[in-house]
Amino acid sequence: MGGMSQSFTDKLAARIKETGSALCVGLDPRPGMDDLEAIPALLRKVVEETAPYAAAFKPNIAYFEAMGLRGLEILEDLLPDMPKDVPVVLDAKRGDIGETQKYYAHAYFERLGVDAVTLSPFMGYDTLEPFLNYEGKGVYLLAVTSNPGSADVERQELAGGRRVFELVGDMVLRSVREGCKTSVGMVVGLTNADSSILERIPDAPLLIPGLGAQGGDLSCLSGSGHVAPPLINVSRGIMYQNPELGFAEKAAGFAQRIREALNY
Amino acid sequence: MGGMSQSFTDKLAARIKETGSALCVGLDPRPGMDDLEAIPALLRKVVEETAPYAAAFKPNIAYFEAMGLRGLEILEDLLPDMPKDVPVVLDAKRGDIGETQKYYAHAYFERLGVDAVTLSPFMGYDTLEPFLNYEGKGVYLLAVTSNPGSADVERQELAGGRRVFELVGDMVLRSVREGCKTSVGMVVGLTNADSSILERIPDAPLLIPGLGAQGGDLSCLSGSGHVAPPLINVSRGIMYQNPELGFAEKAAGFAQRIREALNY
Repeated sequence: MGGMSQSFTDKLAARIKETGSALCVGLDPRPGMDDLEAIPALLRKVVEETAPYAAAFKPNIAYFEAMGLRGLEILEDLLPDMPKDVPVVLDAKRGDIGETQKYYAHAYFERLGVDAVTLSPFMGYDTLEPFLNYEGKGVYLLAVTSNPGSADVERQELAGGRRVFELVGDMVLRSVREGCKTSVGMVVGLTNADSSILERIPDAPLLIPGLGAQGGDLSCLSGSGHVAPPLINVSRGIMYQNPELGFAEKAAGFAQRIREALNY
Repeated sequence: MGGMSQSFTDKLAARIKETGSALCVGLDPRPGMDDLEAIPALLRKVVEETAPYAAAFKPNIAYFEAMGLRGLEILEDLLPDMPKDVPVVLDAKRGDIGETQKYYAHAYFERLGVDAVTLSPFMGYDTLEPFLNYEGKGVYLLAVTSNPGSADVERQELAGGRRVFELVGDMVLRSVREGCKTSVGMVVGLTNADSSILERIPDAPLLIPGLGAQGGDLSCLSGSGHVAPPLINVSRGIMYQNPELGFAEKAAGFAQRIREALNY
């Protein structure tokens, strides 16, 4: 790449090629299910054992915030020790006026140093702008999420026949047109993704939750014609389900299912 | 009120009556503008001096999070010492799947003990539900925010002629129909609020940013026919503008402007 910084999309594509899969390992430590003091070691074990199969890691900041200051301290202690070649997507779903978003962007990209972050596009493009000029970084905009409530706003029909989530696709295209340095992708839940959704959104990096505990089916992704690198997230399915299996074994299994479904 | 807990709306209405105004004092400490170690004393001074004029306080968690763990510690230290008779609205704009929102709801209503919180409705009603059964608590759903980007999604026209923000009004009405214990209101930015907006949303408690630094005009609120208690937020206008004036003096001035505009 010469002196140029690599884009988040290129970095992610390289990692997907290396692992032969697009598995994103979700790090959602659930206080109440575990002893708080056991959580740092649990997270380190999950990261260490699943890293060979992980195209990315995705800590959801909600679970850390729910543990209070100690939870955020656990996140801040973990991040610098995570493998440098695996991108980290901080799942924060933040959205606020631009003046305020500047503070979030600084906190996540500069202070915590994560590679990408999820954002809510509900308040409009100007609220995303503070995140859009970071070379080598990425953002994923909520578009069609994996919960039933995605029908309430995200999938509603607009005047003219388009759907609300297509407005999010417009923001992705606008960021490209404006030459933003940050890679902009979208969150599309597997449980609500089908060809009618995928054909209505641009070919951008997709972060796809809903495999595993939420029961989504990967077959809808094949043949969509999208070439940008996707990430298929599994959180509970690796960290908490089937405790009789090791984390490496579960991650390998999901990576294999993804590899077969996407024909890597 | 006998043995019944008072609703957030009743508590707020009582406080508005007591102060004779609907001023919400925003607590947005801006790191970089102040020395970090000076912030706790600054916040305590703002709270102490503006309390007689405050119908509510609204800390925006973004500004605390941007200061790192120390910032969140400052917020957690401040909250228990705030005046008990003034409701606290935590401006967090959170939205995530219901399973995750449970953790945020627990963190805000039970651990931090705030009276109300702002939420993003973008992902749908099921993502709000974990917040909706807390007696004496309130939530404000983003509806029409005060930034220009509110045109990108929130104010878009739906098939059938309604606007996206009206879907948020539907969620407010649904919470009432379902007998939810939490009071549900909406965030409507003063800069984008006019009679055509106000006549399209239910008569629910409104949290109204945009006065002061953002330049909104209060006259649009009079004559809307809404009777639920509103909150008019001022953040920068009290904490950072006109530093030659005292915080009490600035708060008294905004409270007076609100009183006159709303005919209290």
